[in-house]
Amino acid sequence: MRAGRDRDASVALVRRYRATIEYDGTDFAGFQWQPQVRTVQGEIEAALQRLTGAEVKVVGAGRTDAGVHALGQVVSFSAATGIPVERMAAAMNSVLPADVRVVRAGETDEGFNARFSARSRSYVYVMLNRAEPSALLRRYVCHVRGALDAQAMADAAGRLVGEMDFAAWANSLGEVRTTVRRVFRCAVRRRGAWVLLFVEASGFLHGMVRNIAGTLMQVGSGKRRPEEMEAITASRDRRMAGPTAPAHGLCLVRVSYTDAGGTPALVEE
Amino acid sequence: MRAGRDRDASVALVRRYRATIEYDGTDFAGFQWQPQVRTVQGEIEAALQRLTGAEVKVVGAGRTDAGVHALGQVVSFSAATGIPVERMAAAMNSVLPADVRVVRAGETDEGFNARFSARSRSYVYVMLNRAEPSALLRRYVCHVRGALDAQAMADAAGRLVGEMDFAAWANSLGEVRTTVRRVFRCAVRRRGAWVLLFVEASGFLHGMVRNIAGTLMQVGSGKRRPEEMEAITASRDRRMAGPTAPAHGLCLVRVSYTDAGGTPALVEE
Repeated sequence: MRAGRDRDASVALVRRYRATIEYDGTDFAGFQWQPQVRTVQGEIEAALQRLTGAEVKVVGAGRTDAGVHALGQVVSFSAATGIPVERMAAAMNSVLPADVRVVRAGETDEGFNARFSARSRSYVYVMLNRAEPSALLRRYVCHVRGALDAQAMADAAGRLVGEMDFAAWANSLGEVRTTVRRVFRCAVRRRGAWVLLFVEASGFLHGMVRNIAGTLMQVGSGKRRPEEMEAITASRDRRMAGPTAPAHGLCLVRVSYTDAGGTPALVEE
Repeated sequence: MRAGRDRDASVALVRRYRATIEYDGTDFAGFQWQPQVRTVQGEIEAALQRLTGAEVKVVGAGRTDAGVHALGQVVSFSAATGIPVERMAAAMNSVLPADVRVVRAGETDEGFNARFSARSRSYVYVMLNRAEPSALLRRYVCHVRGALDAQAMADAAGRLVGEMDFAAWANSLGEVRTTVRRVFRCAVRRRGAWVLLFVEASGFLHGMVRNIAGTLMQVGSGKRRPEEMEAITASRDRRMAGPTAPAHGLCLVRVSYTDAGGTPALVEE
């Protein structure tokens, strides 16, 4: 049996890999594999199948939605290949489409799981706050025409830091065990026409960053006061928070592990 | 005669406009109008025709090549329209494709010509210097795999500042009166994985920034010494300089006039 022999022959070379992935989410139905649509996980698994001749299951640290980008997604997988570890990133890039890139790849220990070993995920939500939209960065920023009060947004954002029940900030609870998450950082900074929201947490509920961004935009435009944040959280009621901000302004910038790896080269705060 | 009456009726409202334009050059055959292909000038003129019902001739400060981007291109035109001046940018954006945006538009004096009134043009050439390319910014940066010595590049770049005959740096001389240009600034800076080349000059010969970028990349990778710059310039021979760097790394960021206008909001050095 051909397939069986191939699998046996490669057993000796099976390695556990960890890779940092950058992608332009514009033309993807999200990170996670789904039938019939283009997903980041699907493209990475197809690339690994081409390189190894076998089916490879990839686990990602963050299951980003359709349209959401990543500079520092982290994936783990086990694969059997004769490609030297230091050539793995280049080899994967040689068979991946241009909107997914392996920034770096290396061998990791057997127990490493990109999702379950992660200590925190960091996202940035990018708003361009000027009269007219951007042509060059139209795929990566959310245009906000009316003036945003970044100071008020920063005040509101700070009220979401801590270990809390974030049920009010989730679009769907799905199969989560608990809606308690620890937010390590939630900060807003203005730099010229740019308003940036940085959120780092132990984990995120579905739509959480975009719901925070949409609510903070309401604060920034004077529709809500920063003091309302606590009441929204306490309500555990999704209807109390603001609208979900558009996906294309969101980017997964970093996943942190206890070894402090995974920092992408493109981001500088 | 309908057309004649329309033209007469609008004479009283003819205004001279100056507009700052941002565009993603990826899907354009360059700024300047050419038959049968998509150009930035062509799109802006088509938008103005839709808004005014008349043919409008647009002049741009820099005639960027196919694939070259702009954050701060400046155009001038005369048009007759009932649209209030402060609504002109939004009106133009409502009929322009998403990869061309009017950042701002205003009335200017009759004698203003975006091209001939310009005091200087500033370009940035963006290199991403790391092992693997970028997915997110693949349309806007030139990927350079091998380590670049930005210090040597900066040394070489500084040797191009001043009023000199830049014939050696031009791909074609076309119909230019003189190949003497004044370079106000030519500087290279590294920021993490990014290497940025900033060039500001009274004007540029065809391909000049990209030829400088291509030559500086040779300096950065040790193929040339910074001291060779003066000899290249003195030769007035295109074959002495390095290759033309790819168009997609180049962006026209600012056009300066004596009134110091035209600075785009997206760029911060």
